[in-house]
Amino acid sequence: MATTQSLPPVDQSHKKDLGPISTPERLLLGPGPSNAHPIVLQALARSPIGHLDPLYVELMSEVQELLRYTWQTNNRLTLPMSGTGSSAMEATLANTVEPGDTVLVGVNGYFGNRLADMAGRYRANVQLIEKNWGEAFSLEELEAALIEHRPAILALVHAETSTGVCQPMDGIGDLCRQHNCLLLLDTVTSLGAVPVFLDDWKVDLAYSCSQKGLSCPPGLGPFTMGPRAEAKLAARSGKVPNWYLDVSLLNQYWGSDRVYHHTAPVNMNFGMREALRLLADEGLENSWTRHRANAEKLWAGLDRLGLKLHVPEELRLPTLTTVSIPEGVDGKAFSLHLLNKHGIEVGGGLGSLAGKIWRIGLMGYNSTPENVDRLLNLFESELPSFRQGVAVAA
Amino acid sequence: MATTQSLPPVDQSHKKDLGPISTPERLLLGPGPSNAHPIVLQALARSPIGHLDPLYVELMSEVQELLRYTWQTNNRLTLPMSGTGSSAMEATLANTVEPGDTVLVGVNGYFGNRLADMAGRYRANVQLIEKNWGEAFSLEELEAALIEHRPAILALVHAETSTGVCQPMDGIGDLCRQHNCLLLLDTVTSLGAVPVFLDDWKVDLAYSCSQKGLSCPPGLGPFTMGPRAEAKLAARSGKVPNWYLDVSLLNQYWGSDRVYHHTAPVNMNFGMREALRLLADEGLENSWTRHRANAEKLWAGLDRLGLKLHVPEELRLPTLTTVSIPEGVDGKAFSLHLLNKHGIEVGGGLGSLAGKIWRIGLMGYNSTPENVDRLLNLFESELPSFRQGVAVAA
Repeated sequence: MATTQSLPPVDQSHKKDLGPISTPERLLLGPGPSNAHPIVLQALARSPIGHLDPLYVELMSEVQELLRYTWQTNNRLTLPMSGTGSSAMEATLANTVEPGDTVLVGVNGYFGNRLADMAGRYRANVQLIEKNWGEAFSLEELEAALIEHRPAILALVHAETSTGVCQPMDGIGDLCRQHNCLLLLDTVTSLGAVPVFLDDWKVDLAYSCSQKGLSCPPGLGPFTMGPRAEAKLAARSGKVPNWYLDVSLLNQYWGSDRVYHHTAPVNMNFGMREALRLLADEGLENSWTRHRANAEKLWAGLDRLGLKLHVPEELRLPTLTTVSIPEGVDGKAFSLHLLNKHGIEVGGGLGSLAGKIWRIGLMGYNSTPENVDRLLNLFESELPSFRQGVAVAA
Repeated sequence: MATTQSLPPVDQSHKKDLGPISTPERLLLGPGPSNAHPIVLQALARSPIGHLDPLYVELMSEVQELLRYTWQTNNRLTLPMSGTGSSAMEATLANTVEPGDTVLVGVNGYFGNRLADMAGRYRANVQLIEKNWGEAFSLEELEAALIEHRPAILALVHAETSTGVCQPMDGIGDLCRQHNCLLLLDTVTSLGAVPVFLDDWKVDLAYSCSQKGLSCPPGLGPFTMGPRAEAKLAARSGKVPNWYLDVSLLNQYWGSDRVYHHTAPVNMNFGMREALRLLADEGLENSWTRHRANAEKLWAGLDRLGLKLHVPEELRLPTLTTVSIPEGVDGKAFSLHLLNKHGIEVGGGLGSLAGKIWRIGLMGYNSTPENVDRLLNLFESELPSFRQGVAVAA
């Protein structure tokens, strides 16, 4: 052992003495992560196999095919990025934006701003079309902006997790083709839970996450790219300025060549495979109907309790409901109470909605009537004591 | 349900009808992933909790502190990137390289080339210092290159997974400070298993992976950045040209502010927490000694069987042993035989070593005398039938 004898002593100052992990069981009814399906969790705990093992390669194909089903797309380049949803978001821009390209971003919430931030880092000429947080864009507004800015890419958020708005998609794809631009769509909070018809809508680039409608823990970012976006990637003058997310390299691994790119997160993909299988077993239509029914049950219950919803019904996301915090209520105190006393996570507002709303998620495995009842009961029984002065006034 | 009545029919063509997942138990003795510790696998299957949950925030601090111990560093900015080791590799460059900076990369294997590719994507002036695959750099060679190229960053691979070489580190940090450049080190195949003294070696930037010395599945990329690299990041003229890996944003989440950046892969971090705890329980010194002892047992056994190792003993990595494929043996056929008949994965060569070597990993949980014996027995009993003509000559 001559090689270790000359080593300096090991510094023990950062050696924390810890017991085994002990995380609590939570019911995650916030903006995500949502609870994962128990079968998905069991799949995560399987022994890893090699990222080039023939059996793993088979599993990759299954994941790709079921993602196509879930997104309703025939896109060849459909795969989970080896990072969270934000990495897949960045991949849509990193692969297609060339310096100076105009990217028009619809900003009606937090994630529109993130898209704009990312596009700028790839040296796009970033233009914004903005709406209040809680509204959606009309076709007329989008067309006027396309005419004004002549973008190479229009980026929109289908399901804004920060506001609970579902962007109507009718006609947008046709508009983008008329104006010769790619349509990029955030489906983070819609995939698997809310109707998404990627090809029918003529979407060229989309991304999502694993931890919402798919009932898998966070860690993978489904990504898809259609032929028009592929053509833009192929016509790039230089390499994609991001190695990890470079789809031209990733396609050599996920495509028929199976060339090593990076060591895949195999266990997360075990989970994703099971999550997508369970969704296909249920059937997309059934999953959409279930999410809608449980959301309507929640909305009706909140209405009965006299609570106001932030988004008009016709734009509301079934997966994420934004509730206006009543005047005189410390919203943060109530959500901490739900977490610490009842093990239930409910989200707060982001950005311009911070302190003004709660965000209630009913996503994937968690979209059940029982969860709706449990939460409504707690709002009914425990919220009154968080209303300042209510007891006095009553 | 008015909103779903006008939807197009769901296309069932990609709806694969699959049974429950059924992956085999493999013994992964290749270049990684390696098998994960069963306790780590169980941690992956815990119910997720929120990425801003106070209890998750506590777990993040535990992971950071134990990573500092494992790397032997006091670096404040020490955290697991939410991607695989390659994402952490890219993070070291993305955060510190500004366009036109000279990055000098030591290329004596596959991963040096990857560093060079990545640095180029961040518009560095990339310069290479090259050695044969299986050799290491001398201080004199490195100093001459530093004088010639005057780089802002010298990037080296401590443990070259493609060749099995461990780069001696004595004096390199001092050289870099004399020549005013940052030292960036790949510790993917050394962290936790081979002595690494990051601060003592005056390393400014380093990265690793979860699936080798740490006995966790692939999916997280430990990253660390010292004060000199932090200063370079702080002095950047613009934003980091990569949102997902931007350490100035990530530090707001991992630092005391706990500002939301992305939804963390919480289950992978459950596993990482347990992996680091188990390593600390064993003690770094004991883990290093164990890896060394099992590697020496393997080397002696391979020598007894008349097999040649690709790397001279003084440069050999205890974690990854490269074995020259004997003349007349179809190396790929033998490793496929091991996989399909015995469930054991052994790697092949990459790049200039493709078809010439096997790569045998003894990493983390898999570095045991029993695994060494099992593999040596198979080499002894089954390799002869893969030697063409041997039976005839005997």
